[in-house]
Amino acid sequence: MFDLTRRLEFSAAHRLWCESLSPEENRQLYGPCASLHGHNYVLDVTVRGPVDPVTGMVMDLNRIALVLDEVLFRVVDHKNLETDVPWLSGRVTTAENVVAAMWDQLRPRLGGGLHRLRLYESAQNFVDYHGPDAR
Amino acid sequence: MFDLTRRLEFSAAHRLWCESLSPEENRQLYGPCASLHGHNYVLDVTVRGPVDPVTGMVMDLNRIALVLDEVLFRVVDHKNLETDVPWLSGRVTTAENVVAAMWDQLRPRLGGGLHRLRLYESAQNFVDYHGPDAR
Amino acid sequence: MFDLTRRLEFSAAHRLWCESLSPEENRQLYGPCASLHGHNYVLDVTVRGPVDPVTGMVMDLNRIALVLDEVLFRVVDHKNLETDVPWLSGRVTTAENVVAAMWDQLRPRLGGGLHRLRLYESAQNFVDYHGPDAR
Amino acid sequence: MFDLTRRLEFSAAHRLWCESLSPEENRQLYGPCASLHGHNYVLDVTVRGPVDPVTGMVMDLNRIALVLDEVLFRVVDHKNLETDVPWLSGRVTTAENVVAAMWDQLRPRLGGGLHRLRLYESAQNFVDYHGPDAR
Amino acid sequence: MFDLTRRLEFSAAHRLWCESLSPEENRQLYGPCASLHGHNYVLDVTVRGPVDPVTGMVMDLNRIALVLDEVLFRVVDHKNLETDVPWLSGRVTTAENVVAAMWDQLRPRLGGGLHRLRLYESAQNFVDYHGPDAR
Amino acid sequence: MFDLTRRLEFSAAHRLWCESLSPEENRQLYGPCASLHGHNYVLDVTVRGPVDPVTGMVMDLNRIALVLDEVLFRVVDHKNLETDVPWLSGRVTTAENVVAAMWDQLRPRLGGGLHRLRLYESAQNFVDYHGPDAR
Repeated sequence: MFDLTRRLEFSAAHRLWCESLSPEENRQLYGPCASLHGHNYVLDVTVRGPVDPVTGMVMDLNRIALVLDEVLFRVVDHKNLETDVPWLSGRVTTAENVVAAMWDQLRPRLGGGLHRLRLYESAQNFVDYHGPDAR
Repeated sequence: MFDLTRRLEFSAAHRLWCESLSPEENRQLYGPCASLHGHNYVLDVTVRGPVDPVTGMVMDLNRIALVLDEVLFRVVDHKNLETDVPWLSGRVTTAENVVAAMWDQLRPRLGGGLHRLRLYESAQNFVDYHGPDAR
Repeated sequence: MFDLTRRLEFSAAHRLWCESLSPEENRQLYGPCASLHGHNYVLDVTVRGPVDPVTGMVMDLNRIALVLDEVLFRVVDHKNLETDVPWLSGRVTTAENVVAAMWDQLRPRLGGGLHRLRLYESAQNFVDYHGPDAR
Repeated sequence: MFDLTRRLEFSAAHRLWCESLSPEENRQLYGPCASLHGHNYVLDVTVRGPVDPVTGMVMDLNRIALVLDEVLFRVVDHKNLETDVPWLSGRVTTAENVVAAMWDQLRPRLGGGLHRLRLYESAQNFVDYHGPDAR
Repeated sequence: MFDLTRRLEFSAAHRLWCESLSPEENRQLYGPCASLHGHNYVLDVTVRGPVDPVTGMVMDLNRIALVLDEVLFRVVDHKNLETDVPWLSGRVTTAENVVAAMWDQLRPRLGGGLHRLRLYESAQNFVDYHGPDAR
Repeated sequence: MFDLTRRLEFSAAHRLWCESLSPEENRQLYGPCASLHGHNYVLDVTVRGPVDPVTGMVMDLNRIALVLDEVLFRVVDHKNLETDVPWLSGRVTTAENVVAAMWDQLRPRLGGGLHRLRLYESAQNFVDYHGPDAR
């Protein structure tokens, strides 16, 4: 078994804001992240599988790149995650929630081989997710 | 003469939008950057000068760090550059305009030794500025 | 389950030196690392857990940052690990021993969610540790 | 148990080309990678084990570095992976195949503690491998 | 005056080999670089100029990106610099010679504002060039 | 004219401490840097010159690497800059003073082509020096 990882970078605006809480509670809970700001996000997409003995590949990297471009990059790059992305609507855009929503977008296109998503908000923090069925 | 550089990182939202142009012209001119998005910005602040023979320093790095925190970080980090920063009001927030505005903020505090500002929007592009009197 | 990671950087001096060995044995065993030198260390602290359905967070990143500052940064940054850190006293300061000692410091403050520590001495080498009960 | 990782960098030429396919099939399958090009490869070598209570080490990093230099660096650095490396002969040099071949070279020298190899072709993609007996 | 820089990355094979020297002289002169190998090259392209008061830009970054893609990326990425690039034919592909050749390709498209090219072969070495008329 | 840069990395301990000041004055002046700590230093060494029309090189990179190893790396790597380096004796080891001392060591070996030294203490701060005769 091999784990093959492809990186995607995108720039987006977001804030942490929970609609069921008051403005004061949001500012208390999320601190400076409650203000609209933004990141150069980095997403590492990992697929797991055996290597095809002819091609020598777990999966075609160019195909993965195309899927990432179509399913994610065109939707989130140079966008405001609070208002522009249908599948983030109504969610607090913590890295945890964003990565889980991205899993749901990618899973139908990359299949059961999708093994892990790692989302960096910055060099200082990131989240790993292995899908709803992991462990 | 020595050039001493200190790095500052901040996360902010922005878009490229010129009020004197129509929405169509803005989208044509700035492409995807006309939508609100964001970056992990990096600012390299360089001061130039001789070394003090006793302290061995061009300028106290801790003092530079305090000035950067007070004059820039508290104002721009986790903020929307379009609405939250008084000294960017009415300017298109290209890296060029932002770095020139930051020069105007820092110059009174760092003095004539301020030599260069480099602002990275991402690893893919950055701007250098040496002030209005350079060359 | 999500893994949330926060990065901490600190600069410290250390050497590899085992008191129960002779100077010759130390120099033979540890090579150049037996001389006092130093690093810009990087520590990645990972907590594992489910996401709170209201806040969208595994744990509050700002709280993790505060704990790391109080428990580690103030104690090890700009310090000599050989003499200045009580909980490293008497230990050879290999990355393995340092990361295990840091686990013991963080575990009472971050609780059972503490999942992994990764300590980089440089871009060329690092150590991962999952605690004394792992596997 | 600790995981200790040492990084090795090397520069090499390669292309993706499967001898059992026609040139057209190769170009279709591998796209631009079917042309001879090259990379600054990065290999992260991880050994897993307990810490020796006297030395404080899982394994001597300097010994690992010597093995990597002798077994890999001298053979692959500044080389063409298509023609210059005996143990890659006849294999399509995908990252998956290269990392598996490197495992076979390192395993006899690093022993059962060899836990993982991660090979980066660039910052955009990498492969992890835990050996033929993993899972 | 502002300096605006855009980064381009490409992967290519090359070797250092001077046709007017014997194989022995080449191996003596260039050492391991005389063997075909490869790099993930990074090119930083800098244009210098005043900022347009309406657009806030020295030059349109998207236009620079298109020129770099058309003039350089399509020609050198996933290629062998020794055989596949017409404008490198007959030149020893040192970073110095490659960057000067790239200047000649870009100058007609980017105009007199082209100020500097920096070409990284790896994180360990790079070359800066300001054109044939500099200084 | 071309600027060719070669990078050197080394790990060392140091503190900022001026013998002509009292301990209290040192702690006031240098803050946390007055305690012994350490860094993974990075030195970028730049030589400037025309390209040799036969070799295509400003200077032989392998020769530069050998000089850096002999003159600097063997002397400062895995060392305490306060006590182990003869040509730093009696100097406050600020980045400014260290880079000037390194210039004096390299100038006789690299000749008049030596153009700039950049010394990083960390990703957050660095110093550039062009020698005593610059400007």
